[in-house]
Amino acid sequence: MDILEINRERLQADIEALAEIGRSKDYGIYRMAFTEADIEGRNWFKQKAQEAGLTLYQDGAANIHARYQWDDKRPSVMMGSHLDTVPAAGHLDGALGVVVALECLRCIKEKNIKVNYPLEAIAFSDEEGRFGGMLGSQAIAGMLTPEKIVNATDLNGIKLIDAMQDAGFDAMDALHAKRHPDSIHAFLELHIEQGPILDGMGISIGNVDAITGLFKWDVSIIGTANHAGTTPMDMRKDAFMGLSEFASQVKRILDENGSPRSVATIGRVEISPGAANVIPGKVEFSLEARDTNQDVLDDLASAFRKSLSAIARKHDLMFEFRVLSEISPVKSDTGIVDTIENVCKSLSLPFLKMASGAAHDTQIMARIARAGMIFVPSKDGRSHSIAEWTDMDDIVKGANVALNTLFKIAGGQL
Amino acid sequence: MDILEINRERLQADIEALAEIGRSKDYGIYRMAFTEADIEGRNWFKQKAQEAGLTLYQDGAANIHARYQWDDKRPSVMMGSHLDTVPAAGHLDGALGVVVALECLRCIKEKNIKVNYPLEAIAFSDEEGRFGGMLGSQAIAGMLTPEKIVNATDLNGIKLIDAMQDAGFDAMDALHAKRHPDSIHAFLELHIEQGPILDGMGISIGNVDAITGLFKWDVSIIGTANHAGTTPMDMRKDAFMGLSEFASQVKRILDENGSPRSVATIGRVEISPGAANVIPGKVEFSLEARDTNQDVLDDLASAFRKSLSAIARKHDLMFEFRVLSEISPVKSDTGIVDTIENVCKSLSLPFLKMASGAAHDTQIMARIARAGMIFVPSKDGRSHSIAEWTDMDDIVKGANVALNTLFKIAGGQL
Repeated sequence: MDILEINRERLQADIEALAEIGRSKDYGIYRMAFTEADIEGRNWFKQKAQEAGLTLYQDGAANIHARYQWDDKRPSVMMGSHLDTVPAAGHLDGALGVVVALECLRCIKEKNIKVNYPLEAIAFSDEEGRFGGMLGSQAIAGMLTPEKIVNATDLNGIKLIDAMQDAGFDAMDALHAKRHPDSIHAFLELHIEQGPILDGMGISIGNVDAITGLFKWDVSIIGTANHAGTTPMDMRKDAFMGLSEFASQVKRILDENGSPRSVATIGRVEISPGAANVIPGKVEFSLEARDTNQDVLDDLASAFRKSLSAIARKHDLMFEFRVLSEISPVKSDTGIVDTIENVCKSLSLPFLKMASGAAHDTQIMARIARAGMIFVPSKDGRSHSIAEWTDMDDIVKGANVALNTLFKIAGGQL
Repeated sequence: MDILEINRERLQADIEALAEIGRSKDYGIYRMAFTEADIEGRNWFKQKAQEAGLTLYQDGAANIHARYQWDDKRPSVMMGSHLDTVPAAGHLDGALGVVVALECLRCIKEKNIKVNYPLEAIAFSDEEGRFGGMLGSQAIAGMLTPEKIVNATDLNGIKLIDAMQDAGFDAMDALHAKRHPDSIHAFLELHIEQGPILDGMGISIGNVDAITGLFKWDVSIIGTANHAGTTPMDMRKDAFMGLSEFASQVKRILDENGSPRSVATIGRVEISPGAANVIPGKVEFSLEARDTNQDVLDDLASAFRKSLSAIARKHDLMFEFRVLSEISPVKSDTGIVDTIENVCKSLSLPFLKMASGAAHDTQIMARIARAGMIFVPSKDGRSHSIAEWTDMDDIVKGANVALNTLFKIAGGQL
């Protein structure tokens, strides 16, 4: 097999250049979708793509496509990720996938490789969720509606329509970003793992065979707020004690109903009234569970409900829950998983078949295209943090796997 | 035994009049110490005391004394409570004790009763803790220092010195409010129970034989914040799971180390970073425990520490704690408890000997004087709430017990 290699220095320079955009001295990087920093990142990407001689296209959702051998007829192989970030972000989440896609197309163009399927390096809009998340990929997958666009609002109450208009876009055009499934042959995304598994095992490549689905609930347990000094223990209806009892059941519920890939997290807890000398009358908390199998998720949801219900009954509390989101798990395309595996073998790179526990644009793109993902290690599993780090050697290995996988999927000929 | 009776209509009118001061339409009553509403409450009390022909005295801590047969020589019998309130308060906590004290002195004055010990109806400053709590009684007990006064600051960063100056007081004068223990023969306070015990048993009078001591800790459990989707359950250091495990041990620790009067509460919990999709890296919470016996409190503190330490060790978490406050339990004077008991019997009123789970000025006054407390029921145990309620029949019973107890303690002669 012919083996292609990316340009390490050029890739590193791009990573470093992009890392300066939206960076503040003390708080890491913040390129919130459609803000100035995000636009600056987009412009940087456009300029780099143009310098590389790729064709630029910006769709109605403001996704940027850098295209190679595009002819508007054949379906494309698309590769990319996003440039927007969470607050106080590191330099790799999303950005690495865009930069590597750009580098792959540059390498292929430099060698004048003929491809059966035109290539697109893509930077998706608002993956991180200023307006709900995965806006750009959802637009391409045809998941947006006029209502969704009109109602989308960020945490500060700013409307998507206004934010996009301020950045020079018409949000309603996002409806036209929809692509016919036949127009995309395959989708590939390289991303940092954002978890500790590869780093812990010392393996450079993750071959993602599935992305976990999840459900996220907002749960309330309601008791009675009372004076912490004057209310005997046996006359209390302590909402926090209800939550504690539930939390202590989470591991058992996962053991009994989950798979080895199942995780569940109580990440947010609000106690009312929240004073040291008042028995909590109400707790509101998030419950999020993930697995790669929908049946397992359903079983977990049912077990969580039963447990909450039993605890509420036992302690004379009430509980309510609201489903905030449900995302179905998706499986990678087995052909792409096999291709990544073969490429790793030909590059003599150990790899781990694994699930992605985080959500990615790939999850959306899998609805309309064969999809696959390549992970590179996250040092100590850190992500969404300025401590985010991946060794350049691992990045290069990942980029080379991506390049050769892309070459094969696109039917490249040297 | 001669039985004195308070004037029900006058008492009720006073309760209702005071309840209008600092009241807002939707948020109950708020007379924060040294604010306009508090001053208005003080002025109302001064006027009522003057109308009753009592001698007014305001000490350096702005405590208001309404005096009867004062001669600056004999020790006094003091009775009272406080006029300041928590936010969104009801109309009885503190206020009832002041109004009943006033009514008792009025009744005694109307009958021209000769007393061995002059009487003082007192309204203490800042019991509720804008500046730490029990400021007025601490001043009388000689517990203030210039440093404490200079450093006292409320939650908004306003200094005690400035707040008192704005209200027309010199905070440093509070040092002169100190009373020699020989100058106070006894102290009596009537208060709503603020707990559900009397209401639950249908008993109108609580004869408080002890006030619980407490310790209040600020505890931190520190783990590692990580992505909730990408971090397998067995690689997590979830600070909230540590707290849940601890919370589920609280009942066992009370059962094993506490008394039937012991209570413990986790009332405040802050989770960092506090997002649904991030494993909690840190929880900070309040732990408060109360009992009427210091040895029991010491045992509880030791058991809580052991439990936290074991949980931290087991889950590779760290824990830290800071003692926010420690208040020793105090016992009521047995002579006063017996007097209240005898008065109840002569009035044919059932009563319950009980502990106060809440802190009161009595706790401070007991350091320098024989002290006792009379409780009246709190409907459903509600307090620090606009739902605070005590039936007028119970209030009258409590006030009559207070009046006759005061008469006896002061050596009154009809």
